[in-house]
Order: sequence, then structure tokens, then C-alpha cells
Amino acid sequence: MDLAAIIHETWAELAARRGAGQVADYIPALARVDPTKFGIALATPDGQTHCAGDAAEPFSIQSISKVFVLALALDRHGPKLFERVGREPSGDPFNSIVQLERDHGIPRNPFINAGAIVTTDHLIDDRPVDEAIAELLALLRTIARDDTIMIDGEVAMSESTAGDRNRSLAYFMASFDVLNNAVPDILNGYFRQCALALSCRNLAEAGLFLACDGTDPVTGQTVVSSERCRRINALMLTCGHYDNSGQFAYEVGFCGKSGVGGGILAVVPNRASIAVWSPGLGDAGTSLLGSAALRLIAEKTGWSIFG
Amino acid sequence: MDLAAIIHETWAELAARRGAGQVADYIPALARVDPTKFGIALATPDGQTHCAGDAAEPFSIQSISKVFVLALALDRHGPKLFERVGREPSGDPFNSIVQLERDHGIPRNPFINAGAIVTTDHLIDDRPVDEAIAELLALLRTIARDDTIMIDGEVAMSESTAGDRNRSLAYFMASFDVLNNAVPDILNGYFRQCALALSCRNLAEAGLFLACDGTDPVTGQTVVSSERCRRINALMLTCGHYDNSGQFAYEVGFCGKSGVGGGILAVVPNRASIAVWSPGLGDAGTSLLGSAALRLIAEKTGWSIFG
Amino acid sequence: MDLAAIIHETWAELAARRGAGQVADYIPALARVDPTKFGIALATPDGQTHCAGDAAEPFSIQSISKVFVLALALDRHGPKLFERVGREPSGDPFNSIVQLERDHGIPRNPFINAGAIVTTDHLIDDRPVDEAIAELLALLRTIARDDTIMIDGEVAMSESTAGDRNRSLAYFMASFDVLNNAVPDILNGYFRQCALALSCRNLAEAGLFLACDGTDPVTGQTVVSSERCRRINALMLTCGHYDNSGQFAYEVGFCGKSGVGGGILAVVPNRASIAVWSPGLGDAGTSLLGSAALRLIAEKTGWSIFG
Amino acid sequence: MDLAAIIHETWAELAARRGAGQVADYIPALARVDPTKFGIALATPDGQTHCAGDAAEPFSIQSISKVFVLALALDRHGPKLFERVGREPSGDPFNSIVQLERDHGIPRNPFINAGAIVTTDHLIDDRPVDEAIAELLALLRTIARDDTIMIDGEVAMSESTAGDRNRSLAYFMASFDVLNNAVPDILNGYFRQCALALSCRNLAEAGLFLACDGTDPVTGQTVVSSERCRRINALMLTCGHYDNSGQFAYEVGFCGKSGVGGGILAVVPNRASIAVWSPGLGDAGTSLLGSAALRLIAEKTGWSIFG
Repeated sequence: MDLAAIIHETWAELAARRGAGQVADYIPALARVDPTKFGIALATPDGQTHCAGDAAEPFSIQSISKVFVLALALDRHGPKLFERVGREPSGDPFNSIVQLERDHGIPRNPFINAGAIVTTDHLIDDRPVDEAIAELLALLRTIARDDTIMIDGEVAMSESTAGDRNRSLAYFMASFDVLNNAVPDILNGYFRQCALALSCRNLAEAGLFLACDGTDPVTGQTVVSSERCRRINALMLTCGHYDNSGQFAYEVGFCGKSGVGGGILAVVPNRASIAVWSPGLGDAGTSLLGSAALRLIAEKTGWSIFG
Repeated sequence: MDLAAIIHETWAELAARRGAGQVADYIPALARVDPTKFGIALATPDGQTHCAGDAAEPFSIQSISKVFVLALALDRHGPKLFERVGREPSGDPFNSIVQLERDHGIPRNPFINAGAIVTTDHLIDDRPVDEAIAELLALLRTIARDDTIMIDGEVAMSESTAGDRNRSLAYFMASFDVLNNAVPDILNGYFRQCALALSCRNLAEAGLFLACDGTDPVTGQTVVSSERCRRINALMLTCGHYDNSGQFAYEVGFCGKSGVGGGILAVVPNRASIAVWSPGLGDAGTSLLGSAALRLIAEKTGWSIFG
Repeated sequence: MDLAAIIHETWAELAARRGAGQVADYIPALARVDPTKFGIALATPDGQTHCAGDAAEPFSIQSISKVFVLALALDRHGPKLFERVGREPSGDPFNSIVQLERDHGIPRNPFINAGAIVTTDHLIDDRPVDEAIAELLALLRTIARDDTIMIDGEVAMSESTAGDRNRSLAYFMASFDVLNNAVPDILNGYFRQCALALSCRNLAEAGLFLACDGTDPVTGQTVVSSERCRRINALMLTCGHYDNSGQFAYEVGFCGKSGVGGGILAVVPNRASIAVWSPGLGDAGTSLLGSAALRLIAEKTGWSIFG
Repeated sequence: MDLAAIIHETWAELAARRGAGQVADYIPALARVDPTKFGIALATPDGQTHCAGDAAEPFSIQSISKVFVLALALDRHGPKLFERVGREPSGDPFNSIVQLERDHGIPRNPFINAGAIVTTDHLIDDRPVDEAIAELLALLRTIARDDTIMIDGEVAMSESTAGDRNRSLAYFMASFDVLNNAVPDILNGYFRQCALALSCRNLAEAGLFLACDGTDPVTGQTVVSSERCRRINALMLTCGHYDNSGQFAYEVGFCGKSGVGGGILAVVPNRASIAVWSPGLGDAGTSLLGSAALRLIAEKTGWSIFG
């Protein structure tokens, strides 16, 4: 199978629709991103990465960072983490607080905002926040083999400025004693990890360990154990797109995690790690062209975890 | 891999725990099932079926029938079916009506009760109910190669007697004009399909088409198209265990559908169709020993759709 | 105070706005009512009744009947009734089922549909439905001194035809064993009491016992005890207008119960019983002109239960 | 009617039950209050105040302060206040956030916590918080004719320490742009008004304007207009006891507002303002003995706003 050709065909078939959808506008730094950007990168276990379009340009990966934070937090705490966060799809939007009230402050899964605040709290553990964020950045730079990967300071500041809903979620959990660190510290870490800037190439390469039993095949770094890797993939499949996860599983059939910046990281176990980016979002808050690209790639490759 | 040995080892390792959990007691016919029953059957694409324990004894498959009804309804109506039922995990118990009110009578997915009432309505279509149920029974007899498969009349009657909650769900949807047939007719069909009695062997063989791109490899019967088969598997993965689907995906990593009679049908694409039965249920309403057996089989085979 | 003048002034000040609002259209018999109808009647403990506009024309009192059914059910069962229905305002629309699920089938109060289905069940008790309805009709004919008061058979039939939401509510409660009689029987009674046709004069005179400590001052008939009368008034105040009860209390300051037919019965203890009718409803499902008329009457008389 | 005798009889009949119920323990300062305290004070428009038991001892009035904050906020902003807070009973507990999500950040009424945070925001307006709190304190000292009325600094500090749930509510509303001031400033004011310490005598005298058309009959101070006074009373009746308001109206029949410190302020228009205090709370978070005392007083006086 000529994967390079598939990536280019996919890009070319969709390029005319660039600009479709709504760019996230809750913070200025996201609102002014060029809506016509469109990149695809596909990394395979043999160390190759195929790219198309704007695949070298860093963008705000937003919630996709939740996957890497979860990997580190799980590695640090093991299954005890799941005493503070569930593993079930939520049936509610990403920032809903209704479910938290019903479940006494325990978020449904690590990929809704409240759940990622819990995993960030566990990533921080008993360290200074800066140290925890430095570990996350170091991991990404290593497995993506790119020392220029940065946190966008302006985005992080804007996240904080627009962060009252997340503050509300965090204090709500604090009122149920679910959090270990002080809310402002946890949110400091949370807003910064949301502001990570990676290119499609970076992201596909950073996610490759998830397609390879937890070990990055190029650097040889074991990020998580084989069993834990499957479980993170399972969570991406069931919970990776908020209230749209079922449809993504139904139509695409890859494990995936989307971000409001228009990126999606998709994992096809044993086959590939794929990153797409197009800022225009559909009704469910997922990249319109990004989802379409993944559907096309699934069609052209015949890959699916479901048969 | 010696699958026969794995099935027997699994059964033997768990046999001491027979009787654990709570047998469903909302209808007498289920309440008086022997709680120590425990059967496993695994069918592979090459036509072999490996069995252990009470794998030849028919039991009430209850909600597992929703998979077959969905397959037939999808075949009859195509994607138009999804104008009346969603594809998202629900985050609520199987018989919750809260979600229906929020979503104006459209159930979240075909595997909660309300959703299966919608698929039953579509299975009936413009036919007499008896004809629709006969089609379902004929399908199961064909692909399980067993003409003795029956609907347990006593269970069907009991379902109806204890069926006020399902009546409420159906009339609720009717008040939003979601249903085409009269509520009593639809429920007649619904209660009967819940009362299907199959053995583990029957069930594993009947589900084999789902592991084989939609076509039963033994009889050669194409039940659904390859694409539709993947999509049914995706729905089983994200929605097959009500409010426990995430945990099943996380811990077992197979597509699956459970029933309150203590059965679970699991599908590992391209590998196997597995049926387990043990009447004792855990807190989430899924067979305790059945789940444990599938976890062990996943471990011993190394199979997982997630890597 | 010249109450006759106040009633006429109120009618005259609002007459130009006749036809405002939306007439209920869920059943044909209500949809075709002349939207310009507007009547007011005010009955005082001294036996006088002052009328204006279309006060002699019978209309469908709909949910206002819930007050009289409650009075009879309370008289029949006493406080035991409140083991099956609550006394709290609901914070949800009149036909919401969400609250029922949260509270295990117990409706919040007797004036939402589910609650009135419970009081109807208690009114029926162990009698044939017809006997219970006959008792209700006899009461109204006596205290309104009008033997021509009828149930509109066409409306009752239409209520049943359009009654799937109420069927859903009833079966939901039945699934929690909240009801004593069979659902179809209870709904037969429920749909008929909704279809009672009274004029404003009838209604004001029928409600006068609530302004007079439970005893109709003209016929001398004690409908409920003095204490129970206060309690029914309290329920009208806190729950009489579904999700709009707070605003009615805030702006009008009378006890009241509205119906979707455009009628409102208001009670000012020791002062008067007032009935208004204008079919056009506001957003909250209460008669627009009727509410305005009661606000004006409150202003002109200076009456309020709040000071 | 010998009101002094009624107050003493009421106290005496209930004194044996002192200590019943659960003292609020979410902050230490409340948890260590002597549970056997029990005081009653009844103030009448003629300027007399009848007391029994511990009626001279200041206690933490907690949520009862919401009535006075509402009066000042309404006086400052008029009906525009109700663009930011509703007037309907909530059907949810005092600190529920579910309703806020459904209603896009607008609290149901001024007496649940979220609503009182909104009225506090309006009381502050564009002033320093201290100035707003000083105005509230000055009002209470004037109408209760007691310059020693204070805010308990320790309680205010404890409220803040235990205040994460209220922080969550406030940031939630802030995320919907419902608040004008910064959340920490508003909560500073909110926690202090909750910590007001008044005796039963103070409270009954401070609340007398509500029984007297908005004007304190002793000092002659008009706190609110006659119309606004009725409306505050209506809100107390429908919303004054959180999810227990209907039952209080049903059983007592007075306007009232309870606090978690065990106090209740009751208003009988044109008759009296009554304050009761007993720290033990019932299931609904209202003073057990306090409610019982008000029921007895209603019985003995025959007073009720419902007839």
C-alpha cells in the first residue's frame, strides 16, 4: 500500500473545502488562525512519516494534550488514578457540570475537561507545577524528535483569561475533596498543557507509541506498558470526541482524540499514528475537514479496528 | 494457539466462583435459573466451535437480541434508521427516560431499551409483527445452524407483565412521533425478541458473521455488508454494556453486548465470536463470571482491538 | 369597594387585547375555540357573583379540574395521599418525566400531570371509574348550583387520542408501583376530568369554598375542613402554574390554578373566588389576558395574600 | 389574643425536644454551637416584641441574610435585577449547579446560593465591597435598633475556607457573563453577609418591615415600597426553604426564610414578624424545633396567609 500517495490523494480531494466549519473563537489566539490551513501526517512503525499540506506548521493541540497527560499520570499513579476519574463516555458536552453533581465530583473520563483537570492534578503530584509541565514537554520533544516544541504563552494566558468555566469545574471537584493540589496551581498546569503547539508531523510522531504497544519504535522509549497502551486507546475510542465519540467510532473506526484547535490524533493499532489539522469545526466541536480526511484514509487503506 | 485449551482453562479457573453475583429477578422465569450455570463457546472463521461447561443449554439472551434486530433493521432501512435513533453512548442506565426528554424522544443508541424499541419498530416496518419476528428467528436458526432455536413464550409473557417501564418509554417516544407502528404492536415484538433462548454454542455461531465482515463463513450467508458489519461492531464497543461500556472496552478490549440473563456475546474482528453465560450479575448489570471469562480469554490469547 | 365596577373596568381595559397569545392546539377541540373570548367572574362570600364579558359561556377548564379532584381525593384518603405525591413546586414543565425518574416515580405535586394522575387514581379508589367521575360532576353541579355542567365528550376523546405523553407518565409510575388501579382505567378518568366544561360564573362559584375555609357559603356544603382548605390554597400558590408559579405569586399574589384552555381560577382567602377565561396563552402556558386581568384586579382591590 | 402567652406556651411545649436534629457541621464555628439553644421572638406592628428562651443570644443567621440583601439590591436596581436572577422555586437543593447549566447561568431565585451571589453582586454595584457590607450592617442596626449587631469574623473566614462549592457556582455564572464584579470580591461580600450574628429579638424586629408594607413601624424607616414588600414576601413563601418550601407553605402557611444556623424568620403580613432559633436541623436543612414552633404558633393564633 502506497501510504504517501493515499495521504496526498486525501489532501487533494478535500483541499477545495478548506475554510469550511467554524473556527473556535473563545480566545483571540485561536480565533485569528488562518481557517484555510489543512495538514495531514501519517507515521508508521517502520519510522516513516508521510505528510501533506500544512503538516510542518505548529498549531494549538488543545485537548489532544490530554492523551499525553493521561499517559504520564497513569505511569506515575497506576490504576489508583481511576479512584478520582471514571472510564465511561459522558453523554454530555465537554464542559458539562451536571454529571459532576450526579457523581459527587468524580468526572466520567479523563478526556472531558473536568477529567483532565484531575489527571493534571495527578501529573503535578507533589512537585512544583513547572516541573510537571517540564516533564510533559520533555516527553513530547523526545518522542517527536523535535526540541523546538513549545507551549504558546499567549494561548496559555488567554486560556486562563477565558477560564471561568474550568475554574468552576475545578472548585466543584475541590468541594468534594477530589483534588490534591490547590485549584490555582492545577489550573496553571492545565491551561499550559492546553497551549502546547505541535505540527501534524510532531503529533503523528509523538502518538506513534500508541500504535506500537506503548513503545516509540524510533527512539525505543517505552512511554507506557503494552497493557496500558491498549487501555489508553480504548479510552480514546470511547471518549475521545466528547459527545461525538460514538459517531467517530461508527464512521471512522480509529481511536482518536480531537482538539478545539482543529487537530485530531488518530491511532490505528499496529498500523499508524495519524495527525490531521484544519481549524474549521463542525457542530460537535471536531475538525470538519480533519474528520473527513480520516474517513477517507480509513476507506482508502481499508483499516479499521472493527474488522 | 490452542483455543480449545484456552477455553477449558478459562472455564476451569473460574468454575469455583460459580454462583457469584445477583441473578436478575424482575421476572420469575429469570429468577429461578440455576445460578451455578456457566458456559463458554468460541467460534472461529474456519468453522470450528470450542465449548466448555454449560455451553449447550439454551438461556434467555435478552438484550443480546438487540444486535440481531439492529442488523436486520439496518439491512431493511439503511442509514435512515439513524434519523430515529442515535449512535452515542448514553451515560445513563439502560431504561433511563431522562435522556429521551432532553433529546425530544430520540434514543441515544440502538442498545438501550428505548433504542431497541425503535429498531423493533423498523424491523416490523409495514408487516404484521409475527412476520417480523419470524424473520428474526429464521435468521438465527440459519446462521446458528439449529432449527430448534425458540422464543420462550413464558419469558415473553413475563416481560410483558413486568413491562410498564418499557411501555412508558414507548409511549414517550410515540408522543414525539418517533414510532411508526402502534405501541402495543411494537412492544409485542420487543418482548418476544427479548425472550429468545439460545445456547452459548448457538450464540457464538450466530455472531460469527460479525467477526467475518458481515458474512457467515460456514453457511456463506451475508447478513450485512462489510462496512455495516464494522459499524455494528463499533456500536457494540461504545454502547454494548449500557453505562459500563467504557469499562468493558478498557478491561476486555472486545466488541460485546450483554444481556440481563447473564449472557455476553463478544466479537473479535477476524478472530472469533465468543459467547459466555453465567446468570449472576455485577453492579452494572453484566454477568460477573462472563466478564471475567472474557478478560481471561483476552489475556491468554493476547487479542484486543486496541493493539 | 364596588367590585362589580372593578370587574367591568378590568374587562374594558383589556378588551382591546383580545386574541393575543397562542391558543392551545394539541387537540382540535381546543384549537378551534374563538380566540377573542374573554370572560371574568368574581364570587364573594356573601353569595354575590359579578360577571363581565363571556362569563356565561362554558369552556374547557382542563387542569383547573385538578383542584377539585385533589379536594375529593384528600377528603377520601387524608394525608396518606401524600405518600404517593409530593407537595413541592417542580422547577420543570407540567409534563416532564425527568423529575419522576429522580424521585422513583413519586410526582412532585398534585398539579403537574403525573401528580393529577395519582390523585385521579385515589379519587377512583376501589370504585368503577364512572362512579368516581360522577361524584366529581355532582360536586361541581352542587357548589356551582348548575345542573347543566357537563364533561365535553369530544374533548375527552381528543385528550385520549393525544394522550401518549400522559400514558408514558402513568406507565412510568406504574413501573414503580405508585398506582393502585390499572393505567387505562386511571387515564379514562383523567382524560374525562380534564374535559369538564364550566363557565367563568360556574368556576368562580365552584371555587368559593376555597375562599371560605372549605365550606361553600351559599349551599352550606363543607367540601373540605378549614385546615385542608388552607393547604389546598398553599398548593395552588406554590404549584398552581407549573414552572411559572413563582412569577404568578410575585406579580399577582393570589392563590391560583391555570388550565391550558385559557382559564384561571384564583382564590383570595376570605375575600373572593375569581375565574377568568381568555384562550390565548403566553410562553408559560397560562392565559395572557387572564393573568393580566388578575393583576389588574389585585391592583384595583389592593388585595394580596402577601400584605 | 395574648401573644406573650402563646410564645411562652409554644416554647414550653417544645423545650423537652431541645437538642433534636443535626447541627450543621461544615464549618467549626457552627459545629460547636450548643445544640440545646432554643429561642423565640415575635414582633408586632404596635412595636411590642415578645420573647421566650434564648431570644437575646446572637446566632449566625446565615441564609436569612439573603432577604435583607435582596431588599437592598431591589431598592438599588429595581426590576432590572430580575434579568440576572429568576423568581421560580428551584426543585433542587440550595447549592445545585445542574439548574444553572440548564438556564445558562441564571439562578432560579435569589434565595438559593447562586441567586444570593447575584444579589450580592448587585448590592456591591460599583462600590468597594466594604461599603456595601457597611450599608447592610447599618440597615440591620437601624431597624433592629441595636448598634451591637456584628458580622462574626471567624464564621466569615470559615465560610471562605469551606467555600469551594460557592466558588464553583460563582465562576460558573461568571463564565456566562452573569456577574458584574470580580468573583473574589463578590464572594468576600457573600461570605460576610452569611456571617451576620443576630439574636431572635434582633431578627424579629429587623424583619418587621416585611409585615408592615415595607416600612418599619417603630423607626418609620421605609426599607422598600409596599408593592416590593409583597413581592419579597411572595419570594419567601415560594422559595424561602430551598427544596422544602412547598411543605413549609403547606404546613405553616407563613412567609419564611431559613438559615443553616438553625434560625427561621417568618412573616405574617399585617400581623407579626417572628424569629425562631434552634440549631438542630431536619433532613431538609431547616431547624426542626424552629419549624415545629412556627407550626404551633400558626395553630394557636389561627394565622395563615391561606385563609
